[in-house]
Amino acid sequence: MLDLGGRDILRADQFTVDEIHHILNTAGQFAEHLKNHDRLDTMAGRVLATLFYEPSTRTRLSFESAMLRLGGKVLSVASAMTTSSAAKGETLHDTGKMIESYADVAVIRHPREGSAEELAGGADIPVINGGDGTGQHPTQALLDLFTIRQERGTLTGLNVTLVGDLKNGRTVHSLAPVLALLGNHLTLVSPRSLAMPAYVTDALRKHDVRVVETEDLAEAAAESDVLYITRIQKERFENPADYEAVKGAYVVDLDLVKAARSGVILMHPLPRVDEIAAEVDSYEGAAYFRQAANGVPVRMALISLIAGAT
Amino acid sequence: MLDLGGRDILRADQFTVDEIHHILNTAGQFAEHLKNHDRLDTMAGRVLATLFYEPSTRTRLSFESAMLRLGGKVLSVASAMTTSSAAKGETLHDTGKMIESYADVAVIRHPREGSAEELAGGADIPVINGGDGTGQHPTQALLDLFTIRQERGTLTGLNVTLVGDLKNGRTVHSLAPVLALLGNHLTLVSPRSLAMPAYVTDALRKHDVRVVETEDLAEAAAESDVLYITRIQKERFENPADYEAVKGAYVVDLDLVKAARSGVILMHPLPRVDEIAAEVDSYEGAAYFRQAANGVPVRMALISLIAGAT
Amino acid sequence: MLDLGGRDILRADQFTVDEIHHILNTAGQFAEHLKNHDRLDTMAGRVLATLFYEPSTRTRLSFESAMLRLGGKVLSVASAMTTSSAAKGETLHDTGKMIESYADVAVIRHPREGSAEELAGGADIPVINGGDGTGQHPTQALLDLFTIRQERGTLTGLNVTLVGDLKNGRTVHSLAPVLALLGNHLTLVSPRSLAMPAYVTDALRKHDVRVVETEDLAEAAAESDVLYITRIQKERFENPADYEAVKGAYVVDLDLVKAARSGVILMHPLPRVDEIAAEVDSYEGAAYFRQAANGVPVRMALISLIAGAT
Repeated sequence: MLDLGGRDILRADQFTVDEIHHILNTAGQFAEHLKNHDRLDTMAGRVLATLFYEPSTRTRLSFESAMLRLGGKVLSVASAMTTSSAAKGETLHDTGKMIESYADVAVIRHPREGSAEELAGGADIPVINGGDGTGQHPTQALLDLFTIRQERGTLTGLNVTLVGDLKNGRTVHSLAPVLALLGNHLTLVSPRSLAMPAYVTDALRKHDVRVVETEDLAEAAAESDVLYITRIQKERFENPADYEAVKGAYVVDLDLVKAARSGVILMHPLPRVDEIAAEVDSYEGAAYFRQAANGVPVRMALISLIAGAT
Repeated sequence: MLDLGGRDILRADQFTVDEIHHILNTAGQFAEHLKNHDRLDTMAGRVLATLFYEPSTRTRLSFESAMLRLGGKVLSVASAMTTSSAAKGETLHDTGKMIESYADVAVIRHPREGSAEELAGGADIPVINGGDGTGQHPTQALLDLFTIRQERGTLTGLNVTLVGDLKNGRTVHSLAPVLALLGNHLTLVSPRSLAMPAYVTDALRKHDVRVVETEDLAEAAAESDVLYITRIQKERFENPADYEAVKGAYVVDLDLVKAARSGVILMHPLPRVDEIAAEVDSYEGAAYFRQAANGVPVRMALISLIAGAT
Repeated sequence: MLDLGGRDILRADQFTVDEIHHILNTAGQFAEHLKNHDRLDTMAGRVLATLFYEPSTRTRLSFESAMLRLGGKVLSVASAMTTSSAAKGETLHDTGKMIESYADVAVIRHPREGSAEELAGGADIPVINGGDGTGQHPTQALLDLFTIRQERGTLTGLNVTLVGDLKNGRTVHSLAPVLALLGNHLTLVSPRSLAMPAYVTDALRKHDVRVVETEDLAEAAAESDVLYITRIQKERFENPADYEAVKGAYVVDLDLVKAARSGVILMHPLPRVDEIAAEVDSYEGAAYFRQAANGVPVRMALISLIAGAT
């Protein structure tokens, strides 16, 4: 059965293919409601707590907007690391015991891998991992899938190219294995020093899909249905010269778009800095702002499903 | 027509005289509702985002209270400078793209002039400037006008004296040109080093009103219908001795009130520190706390008008 | 009469015995509503402001959850010290004048004793002290009493032992005099350097109850109906060796529970760090998480009673 009531959402790879489609279908219904400005009371009388131990205004507001659009209410901790009991040495397990008394669903963002699981271990209410260290960011992966399906009309058999810092990006760590599970081919484009970790590529190769690693973005773009760009941070390089060498090669501009496969979709988890030129925003396949907007209906779906409210 | 639906509120001088009166009349209706403790659902189902890149609890809570009193909901970012994507280098234009997906109206407070306009350029939803650098603070100007009209029964033909740091105070930069537009005479009282910028006095002199600049508060008070006091900050002076020289001259106490024109109204954007003695609070013309309270109905009017909800 | 409408809540000892029972009875009704997931609109259309000049996520969320569960709305200032006008030198009296325009009830947490009273002096709305320095924390005391009554079935004639840092803990300063007023015997267990202040023990001895001071936790536990444990912070000791000497003596583990009076209830204001071993959590008398959860119905009772909404 597809009842997700009471479930924690800790990893993108915790879902079956059927569950993924069920979540995305539910999100599609909420997207329709948003478009029609329907007033919902799906979560009326319920409370979502957002515990952010690491700043991420975009993710926090996306969850909170989702809860408000569902007719629910929000308890917000934007700077949990400095203002919460964490500073006094409380375990996340005990924090979980606390939050279950105050809220019906909790979201946690934390710089340490495994933190969401620790909170969930203490809390009797469903917990959503809003990003833990370089580990997982499952709701981002689901909104990425929703976007691909919306933009390309399918979630299988596509050539999806992940670009940039694949070593440190939790977004791509969460997304890639699910894309492979769904039967998509993957091209991984990064400087060698920022390549996808072996534990992720090993997981990818278990599926019956092509996985190619390369440093050449232009070549990859020519064969891509989806280009998923992430930011390369200068400070990740030990040697600044190495950064200067790769920097230009991973900037998406209109020249690259023209050289890419026709109809290619451009995605980015945002914020972007220089890695996508502003001139690209007017390209109709530039989907990154629509992708960000999709965070709301996808999180509406997840919150209401695990709260048993749909 | 006076339909403000969809409009950004970026500058105090963007409004016509008719629009100003329409906003103040609408605010007057909301003030009445607040007095009667009426429960409103004008903005039910809608979301206001407050993005504060500079701390200002008073302004933020005033906007948020206005939205809650209208039956709406709030997404709050109290410390956007450190917790938001600004820290990662995102442009305000991209932030605008984000916030339009999460909210129906956005307020921004930012230390840099022009920032509200930049956000509005990215966002398809109406944006309100909650103060940008030493530039504009249009909603403060409107609540000041509302207060003057409420306290004096008119908004024209008054002698209004602006006192204190006129160089750096965005409040008076926003307010003065609108007062002149409405046909009020202005006296500008400040130490010479903190005088009103030329671009503001030039704008004032285009209107058919008297504009006098002086350093003598007592003399000005004797002819004033309204005294608008702002704080002089010690740190604005290069030479501490210059501060000590003017400090005492710009403190409003009961002696000054007695020497002032009978019935004079005292205003201040708050917070006040020493520039108005506590003994003055009991004077019936001490309007600064009523002025602060007027922030709620005026912002209720603005939010609902630009959201097309009234 | 027991009408608490309009009252500030500043000190635990401001209440009569009848008022305490009235508050706890009201809290009991709200606890029942929470258990049944009833949707309440007791505070619909009203606004609670939480002003935290000192971080305390647990206390803040507990108040905010209470308000949301009552159908009300919240204005939240999680970091008032740095983001509010306090940084500009505004008095709490003036802040009170501000907040009365924005909200219907205000909670303040502040590191300075007497701060809640100062805010209440400026505000025409009811103010709740959410903890001021080493002074008072009246709502914590009331939720402690609610927990004792719930766990032991009575609020009188019990042997209650307070353990830990009794010198600096505002929780025990608030709680102890009320326990004595209600006719409970008190044992005060602490290192000599962290003993209960004389002004508190003097207040206790005015009541017709036993008050014993000791450093021996095991001995006290053998005679206790309730063990109320607080944290001893290393940094309170001038001499680190003194800390090492007492540290182990004030850790509650299963061995201590076995040596204690049968059925003893364990309480703690949380967060706990090492002073209660995790193995104790499964002991049925371990009431500290239930105690924390009781913060919500007790604060629901207080908010609605002083707002005149019940």
